[in-house]
Amino acid sequence: MSTRRTNRIGVIGPSVAEPEILSLAEEVGFEIAQRNAILVCGGLGGVMEAAARGAKRAGGLTLGILPGTFGDEANEFIDLPLPTGLGEARNVLVVRSSLVLIAIAGSYGTLSEIALALKLGVPVVALRSWQLRTPEGDEPPVIAARSAKEAVELALKAIAG
Amino acid sequence: MSTRRTNRIGVIGPSVAEPEILSLAEEVGFEIAQRNAILVCGGLGGVMEAAARGAKRAGGLTLGILPGTFGDEANEFIDLPLPTGLGEARNVLVVRSSLVLIAIAGSYGTLSEIALALKLGVPVVALRSWQLRTPEGDEPPVIAARSAKEAVELALKAIAG
Amino acid sequence: MSTRRTNRIGVIGPSVAEPEILSLAEEVGFEIAQRNAILVCGGLGGVMEAAARGAKRAGGLTLGILPGTFGDEANEFIDLPLPTGLGEARNVLVVRSSLVLIAIAGSYGTLSEIALALKLGVPVVALRSWQLRTPEGDEPPVIAARSAKEAVELALKAIAG
Amino acid sequence: MSTRRTNRIGVIGPSVAEPEILSLAEEVGFEIAQRNAILVCGGLGGVMEAAARGAKRAGGLTLGILPGTFGDEANEFIDLPLPTGLGEARNVLVVRSSLVLIAIAGSYGTLSEIALALKLGVPVVALRSWQLRTPEGDEPPVIAARSAKEAVELALKAIAG
Repeated sequence: MSTRRTNRIGVIGPSVAEPEILSLAEEVGFEIAQRNAILVCGGLGGVMEAAARGAKRAGGLTLGILPGTFGDEANEFIDLPLPTGLGEARNVLVVRSSLVLIAIAGSYGTLSEIALALKLGVPVVALRSWQLRTPEGDEPPVIAARSAKEAVELALKAIAG
Repeated sequence: MSTRRTNRIGVIGPSVAEPEILSLAEEVGFEIAQRNAILVCGGLGGVMEAAARGAKRAGGLTLGILPGTFGDEANEFIDLPLPTGLGEARNVLVVRSSLVLIAIAGSYGTLSEIALALKLGVPVVALRSWQLRTPEGDEPPVIAARSAKEAVELALKAIAG
Repeated sequence: MSTRRTNRIGVIGPSVAEPEILSLAEEVGFEIAQRNAILVCGGLGGVMEAAARGAKRAGGLTLGILPGTFGDEANEFIDLPLPTGLGEARNVLVVRSSLVLIAIAGSYGTLSEIALALKLGVPVVALRSWQLRTPEGDEPPVIAARSAKEAVELALKAIAG
Repeated sequence: MSTRRTNRIGVIGPSVAEPEILSLAEEVGFEIAQRNAILVCGGLGGVMEAAARGAKRAGGLTLGILPGTFGDEANEFIDLPLPTGLGEARNVLVVRSSLVLIAIAGSYGTLSEIALALKLGVPVVALRSWQLRTPEGDEPPVIAARSAKEAVELALKAIAG
């Protein structure tokens, strides 16, 4: 199996979320795997788990970059658990390991990942996520999507572009 | 010299900024040192340098948590340069080393630090910084200040509280 | 594909090495993949590249935890490049992501990984690597192997035990 | 107070140690502060605490780079606690923040710091610490000292050199 040229899409979002958000995340994960991309995420519950569940339903490969020191912390749909022991500093790794991010809803941790991605030049597609304005009143270049399918399409387009 | 019980206030903001923002940052640094608090920052230019200059003008102690691997990267007003070699992951250390943060204006890196602080429960005082709304339309608990002096007063109150 | 229960074996060693060491590393990588384990390494040249080449020859999956910020830094046999941007601090991640380490020959970076593994309780199998004695003159519990095949067998036994 | 040109000397060693080792560490800390250098350490107990105690006895400044997320984790002789939340990855920061290291006795964590220092070109002075030989049987360039005073003198000479 060669995954080298495979696209890696990060899915970020809160570890606790409403059922509606969770089905959106699962659908995003499913679409990612359908298009033969690898799912990268923080490996824990909520949006991360729902996205990984969706990806496994479509036979995909899932990578979980964990804050803690044990692989067991990963949700059951993570193929490759990566225990970093770095706490919140692992958010940078989620961003750097992804060619594009899809942000779904959003906790403060998600906001930090969106900000790091903007800083590091990793494109961000957002589904019902943070509304941001710079001190000058400008909107940062986050790509808005209205559905799971559109989010994954826009993400793949952003990588290609 | 015992600094143990001394308050540590982090100042975050962009490495390139308008003169007006820079004088605001310098005044914040000055006020911090005047109240015997230690200035923690990212150690580079712009807001970080202006704040450190202000703190040194008032005889304070300045700590610079650097992204790179050399202490020489620090601006000239940093007493204690801490080269981490961690890149953007050093932002977490700026947040964790501070009992409160004052955000001035704001780049994407600043936004990531505000988000991490909100996540980790470190209070944030903002001066002309990011305007944020959660996906649900709520404002996160960032404390708004209108002047350098008020920012430092609110920061010290947040530590005490 | 489910890799969850798959063993993850880290191979550590210098980025520049003699041909004899490189063939040893390639053989180790081959044996790892033959036994359906995933190869984890630092993703760069020398021992890391030789081990990854061996693993791909046997159709295995290879993960490269990189010090820099670009996936392109990975050698061509890495399926999943993980650019951390953490510099030498990424050594901790190589250790934590592996259930056992095989150290081949050894630079200072390799020594730091052996030490971290001993500290964190990750078993280490050594092939022509560092000779260590504590200040008290004791040898730390590194498992000595004489061939690539024996190293992988001892590594799998250490995981099982 | 300007500490910018002040030498920063790291003291590394186990968090639990014999009384004899602890008095050696305390003496090293005292000598460091006597020569107006700043003591950098891991901030916890044992050798770290004894060295910090010695430094404070001579009126020095002490910096503790902590593995955990709370400054309270620091021993009582640390002026500037730096909670990193990075676990063992904080060892890299202890090395990078020091212009020279003095290793006293030695646990596995200490060994990882010695190895990182050798890798990153930070000089290491050793007092009753690890005995190391490369796979080729060579001794790495660790500077041996026989007393606390000699260790600090050799450390300052290594910085100057």
